[in-house]
Amino acid sequence: MLIDGRKIAEESNIETFKLLNKAKLRLAAVLVGDYAESRKFLEYKRIAAGKLGIDFRLYEFLENITTQKLRKEIVSIAKASVNNGVIIELPLPKHINAQYILNAVPIEKDPDVLSEKAQGSFFVGRSPILPPSVETIKQIFSKNIISLLGKNCAVFGYGILVGKPVAHWLASQGATVSIINEFTSNPKQISINADIIISGVGKTNLITADMVKDSTIVIDFARDVDFENVSKKASLITPPTGGVGPIVIATVLKNLITLKISTS
Amino acid sequence: MLIDGRKIAEESNIETFKLLNKAKLRLAAVLVGDYAESRKFLEYKRIAAGKLGIDFRLYEFLENITTQKLRKEIVSIAKASVNNGVIIELPLPKHINAQYILNAVPIEKDPDVLSEKAQGSFFVGRSPILPPSVETIKQIFSKNIISLLGKNCAVFGYGILVGKPVAHWLASQGATVSIINEFTSNPKQISINADIIISGVGKTNLITADMVKDSTIVIDFARDVDFENVSKKASLITPPTGGVGPIVIATVLKNLITLKISTS
Repeated sequence: MLIDGRKIAEESNIETFKLLNKAKLRLAAVLVGDYAESRKFLEYKRIAAGKLGIDFRLYEFLENITTQKLRKEIVSIAKASVNNGVIIELPLPKHINAQYILNAVPIEKDPDVLSEKAQGSFFVGRSPILPPSVETIKQIFSKNIISLLGKNCAVFGYGILVGKPVAHWLASQGATVSIINEFTSNPKQISINADIIISGVGKTNLITADMVKDSTIVIDFARDVDFENVSKKASLITPPTGGVGPIVIATVLKNLITLKISTS
Repeated sequence: MLIDGRKIAEESNIETFKLLNKAKLRLAAVLVGDYAESRKFLEYKRIAAGKLGIDFRLYEFLENITTQKLRKEIVSIAKASVNNGVIIELPLPKHINAQYILNAVPIEKDPDVLSEKAQGSFFVGRSPILPPSVETIKQIFSKNIISLLGKNCAVFGYGILVGKPVAHWLASQGATVSIINEFTSNPKQISINADIIISGVGKTNLITADMVKDSTIVIDFARDVDFENVSKKASLITPPTGGVGPIVIATVLKNLITLKISTS
């Protein structure tokens, strides 16, 4: 079965809209450099925000900005009371100290859960919101009544946006979790036994049909899966378009409101 | 080969002693209730601190203290400038909100790396010190020249002291990491392929010889391993006595000094 991300996102948006309750909110987004992919994601976020009546303001900076200058700019964006949340589109240019930049967003304005404080709060189980990738998985499992207890999960990649938060969350839910990376000698040995596969690497055809067992569940955040063939075996799978994307974006907006409610 | 924890701890202590450089430091330890096991560990810590000339002060509270009262007490212990570090012996009684208590220790006085801020700093890779279990493993691997890249690691348990920080750290070092818990349907299927097994559950004979491959490396934090039989197959293993314990304690003391140096 295909996971209809647009439908789940729409249901999430209805909930968000109720929470919003005529409050006027603004989401500030930061783009450094001119990546076509980043622009595309930001455009999706702008459209989704607009549909909910949330103001969306894009702050753009040149690729060659220094870490110190960018940090100052983000501190001032975050300080502006008109901005209720700040998201920094990743990746940042290589010369930038990314975590130091992410830490300029205060926890109560961090719907992406990426600052050191927000991550700490999430890792000790005290955050009022979940990282968007985690909330996306949680919603998919909730809609499909999937329990994690005792399930074998294979997580491909250990990046800040998907692998790291997802692996921790799955383990904290009582799943058996295996984290696979580029150095793993035999990924198939692990993935073939997985009831659930989550991927966030960004490498086309990394996960092929011979690597998965029948009826596995596949959630692909980074177009890593050979969808045409893996979808024939999977019991539940996210398509490359209209899969996790809309749910991730809906979650960022829901997190923005939840933070506003829980801290005001 | 047996891992001689006492020898590694002694080498660590020599390093710590040099760092200490005649500074007069005090470690405050908190014990709630009257657990024999906790008392024993605290006594080891007191002795180890004494050998380095570090003052050790035990603060005891009755088992039935409330979370609020205990939090206040720990805030005042941590505020006292004479206390350079505060450790809270776990487990706390069940009625206590443990993370809320651990959060009363400011990051610069938290050699156990257990407060929300300290864990956050560790999880984003910005902490000047490592959680004692992680530093212990790091030292054992460093002394034995073991690289983690591409190694299959099985982590038994996902608790706050061992499994959670260790699993994250191993993954961040490029290891393939599988987290096994009480709900895992077939732990042997995972452990038999593990180059490295780390355990922190607290269940005697949880890991038996048939579950491990020849020449595996076994680091046991909680007496989970059938040492007599597993030691015949392992290339490197921590014994139940004089294994990880002395290194963990030496690390708490080294962390105390590193924090003092890095924040003063």
